[in-house]
Amino acid sequence: MKIFEKVDAIFIKNSMENPDENFYYFTNLDGIWDRSFAIIYPDKIEIFSPPLEKGNFHFYRSKKELDKLLSNYLKVDKVGFNGERLTYRDYVYLKKITKAKLIDISNEIKKMRAIKSEKEIRLIKRACRIALDILNNFKFNKSEREMVIEIENEIRKKNAEPAFKTIVAFGKNTSIPHHSATNKKFCMPALIDLGAKYKRYCSDITRSYIKKKGKSIYEIVEEALYIAIDEIKEGIKAKEVYKKVEKFLEKYGYKMKHALGHSIGLLVHDGLSINKGANFEFKENMVFAIEPAIYTKSFGIRIEEDIVIRKNKAIIIR
Amino acid sequence: MKIFEKVDAIFIKNSMENPDENFYYFTNLDGIWDRSFAIIYPDKIEIFSPPLEKGNFHFYRSKKELDKLLSNYLKVDKVGFNGERLTYRDYVYLKKITKAKLIDISNEIKKMRAIKSEKEIRLIKRACRIALDILNNFKFNKSEREMVIEIENEIRKKNAEPAFKTIVAFGKNTSIPHHSATNKKFCMPALIDLGAKYKRYCSDITRSYIKKKGKSIYEIVEEALYIAIDEIKEGIKAKEVYKKVEKFLEKYGYKMKHALGHSIGLLVHDGLSINKGANFEFKENMVFAIEPAIYTKSFGIRIEEDIVIRKNKAIIIR
Repeated sequence: MKIFEKVDAIFIKNSMENPDENFYYFTNLDGIWDRSFAIIYPDKIEIFSPPLEKGNFHFYRSKKELDKLLSNYLKVDKVGFNGERLTYRDYVYLKKITKAKLIDISNEIKKMRAIKSEKEIRLIKRACRIALDILNNFKFNKSEREMVIEIENEIRKKNAEPAFKTIVAFGKNTSIPHHSATNKKFCMPALIDLGAKYKRYCSDITRSYIKKKGKSIYEIVEEALYIAIDEIKEGIKAKEVYKKVEKFLEKYGYKMKHALGHSIGLLVHDGLSINKGANFEFKENMVFAIEPAIYTKSFGIRIEEDIVIRKNKAIIIR
Repeated sequence: MKIFEKVDAIFIKNSMENPDENFYYFTNLDGIWDRSFAIIYPDKIEIFSPPLEKGNFHFYRSKKELDKLLSNYLKVDKVGFNGERLTYRDYVYLKKITKAKLIDISNEIKKMRAIKSEKEIRLIKRACRIALDILNNFKFNKSEREMVIEIENEIRKKNAEPAFKTIVAFGKNTSIPHHSATNKKFCMPALIDLGAKYKRYCSDITRSYIKKKGKSIYEIVEEALYIAIDEIKEGIKAKEVYKKVEKFLEKYGYKMKHALGHSIGLLVHDGLSINKGANFEFKENMVFAIEPAIYTKSFGIRIEEDIVIRKNKAIIIR
């Protein structure tokens, strides 16, 4: 790992109330792991946990025992931590138990995680297929709230969890990107935004439904999606793709209301966002949700597909 | 609020990946509120959010706009923040956008939240009844994993969400406090630990099932529970209750493997833990889950009830 050119060890804390997905990323462990710590060295990983789990780990029975254990395992020069997740309080604690120089490596971790392994891509594809399968088979016949329950049950039946609260919006409610389901009965236009989390990996897919007439807004959004997918290639800067789509929408008098997309993985928003200021370059084996949208005062259309970047082109996961 | 003797304003950040329940505690808002901020003054609350929600708030369209907005609203002397949730990165950001002295008030917030309003107690009671209703009506007839799915569906049918991943353990698996459900078929002993989250408020209840013989381990745990509940009174220190239960269990040769209990509320672990070092005193309108347990090598028994402290005595919520 390139990170070990910068630090000697990586310190990760995971708790029920404040989980850090990097704990699972580095350890590949299953379970809850409340108040648990992982220290990752170039050649090994040490795990510290209260005696609530099972396995061959360091179990601590008191705060004092924990302090001593962690101190012992942090006798290195430079310790990296995830500043985007470690709390202020835990940072102060870390400073107390080690003399090492502390370095916020959240950007490095993010970059590393952006490029997926084949195993990770397989899990995301599985999560996508679960979502797509549901989108291809449901019927609009209930209220927003009832449909959310139905869709999330379908996700669970397929051995997955909702990656986030499913969005179902009818009529004017489609104009709110983060709409919370109400008792509103089905009417057009309609929007469904759902994600499945399968073995910790997420999908994130949106469909919009509208009665079309001529060059509809739906077709403009769809075209924006394909412009984005065509433009995404290794070596291209994310902000360039954003700007191309922005310009295309502006031709029709519409503005971008949110980012064009985001990386997906252990998190639905896995670290990279394709927005106006996105300076990163696309690389092979990155995986994104691409979600161009148009919102008017009376309704909204969003189409979201998940893509994987392969040999210099973006492929929609089906 | 007593907190305003210490600070002029409270700064709270909430995001999808790192939610701070205090955002909801102070604002009473519903919804996701990704990348949103609340600044709480003694006489008003200001909310800052990307334009993805609806309502009369400050909507920011760029990072620059956000920086400026927050800076303007943080022109005070002392700003309090939740150091147990605010990330290191966001702390560094906060320091950049305000000249105010920053004070970690997570302990003060925790203490404030420990004492529930009547409305909060009503919501927790509702969450308890949802869990109890399920515990009184299910049948053991499936694998651990299938039972978890069934129980969590029941929770959702009652307009709630699981407050945490439901634990169902059979046989030897009951000896692991944080057991993750497997395909193991039903056998005795059995343990179910479940919680419902109703309108953001949590319950947390455990039942153990064992074939009894004489003075069984089950009865020792049950007695430990009642000793705890009898001891919990206004003005009593939490650690005193812990020690009494510990001593009782030691009489039979058993050790406490985890805390005796924890406050519940917006979080399942809402801030206070009843353990060996717990220096806080019980007060009226605090709400706790009390969960004495005995774990042997071959099985475990845990009984957990939720209680509210009223006019100087603890009452089990039924």
